[in-house]
Amino acid sequence: MAVYVLGHKNPDTDSITAAIAFAELQKKLGVDAVPARQGDLNPESELVLKKFEVEVPELVTDVTDKQYMLVDHSDIKQAPDNWDKGELLAIVDHHKVGDITTPNPIFFCAMPVGCTGTVLYKLYVDLYKKEIDPKVAGLMLSAILSDTVLFKSATCTPDDKAVAEELAKIAGVDDMMAWGMEMAKAKSAVEGVAPKDLIFRDYKDFNMGGKTVGIGQLELVSLDLVANMKDDLYEAMKEVKEEGNRHSVFLMLTDIMQEGTELMVVTDDPSIVEKAFGKPLEGRSVWLPGVMSRKKQMVPPLEKAFGA
Amino acid sequence: MAVYVLGHKNPDTDSITAAIAFAELQKKLGVDAVPARQGDLNPESELVLKKFEVEVPELVTDVTDKQYMLVDHSDIKQAPDNWDKGELLAIVDHHKVGDITTPNPIFFCAMPVGCTGTVLYKLYVDLYKKEIDPKVAGLMLSAILSDTVLFKSATCTPDDKAVAEELAKIAGVDDMMAWGMEMAKAKSAVEGVAPKDLIFRDYKDFNMGGKTVGIGQLELVSLDLVANMKDDLYEAMKEVKEEGNRHSVFLMLTDIMQEGTELMVVTDDPSIVEKAFGKPLEGRSVWLPGVMSRKKQMVPPLEKAFGA
Repeated sequence: MAVYVLGHKNPDTDSITAAIAFAELQKKLGVDAVPARQGDLNPESELVLKKFEVEVPELVTDVTDKQYMLVDHSDIKQAPDNWDKGELLAIVDHHKVGDITTPNPIFFCAMPVGCTGTVLYKLYVDLYKKEIDPKVAGLMLSAILSDTVLFKSATCTPDDKAVAEELAKIAGVDDMMAWGMEMAKAKSAVEGVAPKDLIFRDYKDFNMGGKTVGIGQLELVSLDLVANMKDDLYEAMKEVKEEGNRHSVFLMLTDIMQEGTELMVVTDDPSIVEKAFGKPLEGRSVWLPGVMSRKKQMVPPLEKAFGA
Repeated sequence: MAVYVLGHKNPDTDSITAAIAFAELQKKLGVDAVPARQGDLNPESELVLKKFEVEVPELVTDVTDKQYMLVDHSDIKQAPDNWDKGELLAIVDHHKVGDITTPNPIFFCAMPVGCTGTVLYKLYVDLYKKEIDPKVAGLMLSAILSDTVLFKSATCTPDDKAVAEELAKIAGVDDMMAWGMEMAKAKSAVEGVAPKDLIFRDYKDFNMGGKTVGIGQLELVSLDLVANMKDDLYEAMKEVKEEGNRHSVFLMLTDIMQEGTELMVVTDDPSIVEKAFGKPLEGRSVWLPGVMSRKKQMVPPLEKAFGA
């Protein structure tokens, strides 16, 4: 029976590539593993798979009666539909410990590093002592560059950088920063994309103090790219909030070069912004200098503010 | 600030020794780690610490405002008091994924093996490439012998056996099976112990379908040891059920030599036994041949029967 390996909903480059890389590792360990994805590729992930000539994983959104493994999340909200009606066999992650539980012991490895790719490298090299295929190394390297925003994110650790350098050698990528900028530009592509699709490009719902809170993020080489789209984005955020009975929807417009985030907010309680970030909302957004990581700089202060 | 390393409530030998071994590893990694315990040592753990001349860890039952790491569990019910009012930094485990969540990414490593000691060996040797002190190796070996019931338990994997052999070399234990039998005899010591203390010697509460279900286990070299104590044990089980508003209290009298368990039961719903194990309760107990592991052979069928 095939074992599906899945990243989170609205997959980013780490979720797509980690599914492929962990499935490859499992195959080397004798498991009939198949990489899968829960949604469409973003433009950056498309570029990455194309560059390293790797096939797009198959779409799997429901794991009823399936055996499966999760990468890049351990939260029910981000897991496939009917996660508890299939058999979960393993989790590899780099986020906070989520609310997924299991009836039996499983393999669970999470580390407080910037990318699932970094954890996978340690599993390949240190724990299981298996070689990494050059193409797979290229995918893992790309995930690290993406997740750590070219090593600039607050989530980036010395391990991420050291692992990226090793992976670049295996993959034969001579100038990883140039490749990272090429990816960043693909990630910044907003022209002609519907506002709602931009919100959901890299989007996660969280349960904070019993309330549903959505956080999307657009990483941009410049905020100018979205300067004349903000009205449309704001309207789309209102729709997203309404449709999902959400308490709040946040959209992080993260400027990779300026290293900060313009946070757009639609919420039932505007005071939550000052509670979380010590700065009040000005109109529909607030500028948060230095904030680049949803996981490390958005979710923890918001969870605290929501009393989650 | 000291970082406390703690096993579960009502600690067994694995919880005690894993706290010590993981604290030692953390010290080698530069962390000011202090091993701790949530309760009294059982006679087996006492014997183990004495043999390898290791100090008894300090008692810590509340982690308010403390930094801490958990070993051998990831369930709230087994965690220290106010687990969510301190900062949890790491989990090393070999049980099912429990309901503990964190606000930030942490190190979490669980493997489906027979003992936390086996996971710790892989962290020492493979992941962090640190030497294991001979005394610490002796503790980890003892935990594996204890948790796998001398490699007889259904939870025992080839990894546990291979790691035990490596640890025996490091610890200088020539005949690990003889040492395992010595431990088993210490574990079997029931003479002069109050019935309630025997129930709680190796006891865990579970939340099954919203109900509190307690499962204690006594591992015995022979059931004869408790033959004339069963009336007293049964009365004590009724008290335990009453005091904790529990739905059921199970006591596993596990015969290491016969390789099976006489399961004593006090419950609001006697039919749960047949639902879980396919055999009806006969009076106050049922004999379950081959059943030696609470984690692998008791908890999963009971959770299924309770619809948890």
